[in-house]
Amino acid sequence: MDISSANSLSYEDFVDTFGNVVEKNPLVAAAIWSHRPFANLSELEARIVEFIDKLPESGKEGILRCHPDLAGRDLQRGTLTRDSQDEQSQAGMASLTPEETARMYRLNTEYKRRFGFPFIICAKMNNKAAILRKLSERSGNDLAKERECAIDEVKKISSLRLRNLVLPDTQHKL
Amino acid sequence: MDISSANSLSYEDFVDTFGNVVEKNPLVAAAIWSHRPFANLSELEARIVEFIDKLPESGKEGILRCHPDLAGRDLQRGTLTRDSQDEQSQAGMASLTPEETARMYRLNTEYKRRFGFPFIICAKMNNKAAILRKLSERSGNDLAKERECAIDEVKKISSLRLRNLVLPDTQHKL
Repeated sequence: MDISSANSLSYEDFVDTFGNVVEKNPLVAAAIWSHRPFANLSELEARIVEFIDKLPESGKEGILRCHPDLAGRDLQRGTLTRDSQDEQSQAGMASLTPEETARMYRLNTEYKRRFGFPFIICAKMNNKAAILRKLSERSGNDLAKERECAIDEVKKISSLRLRNLVLPDTQHKL
Repeated sequence: MDISSANSLSYEDFVDTFGNVVEKNPLVAAAIWSHRPFANLSELEARIVEFIDKLPESGKEGILRCHPDLAGRDLQRGTLTRDSQDEQSQAGMASLTPEETARMYRLNTEYKRRFGFPFIICAKMNNKAAILRKLSERSGNDLAKERECAIDEVKKISSLRLRNLVLPDTQHKL
């Protein structure tokens, strides 16, 4: 849809459409509906970023905790959101060897014990090797630095999900 | 469970348990997990209230927009959360006459057009007659006043849901 179609949605339809742009956080879409009309996709995205940035640190950690593990229980059980399923599959997380699955599980568990939220990375911008490398690397960060890293990844994921739903600003000017 | 059991939950189990204390807003539970350990149920509840109160006005409206209509589409389709289903049934919303259903639909529609969020009331603290009366009355409020009213009702609903999950402070001192 183009931005004017997005602007014309009722809050119910807006939340149905954009409620998972931030994983399992319909509140973000439900909140930014107050700021309609959006001039363009960039403004819609900026409102999402603004909402996240204004949350207290515990709220940012809350956003992170609503995400599934990479190559974790939800992937194995088939209980990922459709967005996450597509993203994790594309990054090769659905076709790990048993050894790679075991390694991911071990690294995810250590990471969660250290930080109290799951390791999040924009899977569509990374392949399997890069994900494993960055999981190891980022585990060495302190909490404040890593929270910031993880929130930056949430914003990248949201940006790509949004671009699957709304035409980019340049396209609908043609 | 008692408060010490709640304090010992992983964030995954905490969000599974408390994720709908604020309707369809797992973010609230996921965020307040950062504040463990809670001294008692009162502190757990106070953290939820604090999270909601610190949201910007658009965020408070977002919380409201994640709620279903009373006696609305989700009730008819059986797609309410289990909490909402229990609460609406107990208040007689599942056994309205066709005339009452039509009146609720009309009043809800007018309310949503006026305020941009659904009419919310703690159904367990009201009966059918009181709900219909207050829906009419509150429709006359201005936006700021009504947003405040509705958020107060969200807090009452959350408080009762929380008390279904965690033993009151007095009980576990016995």
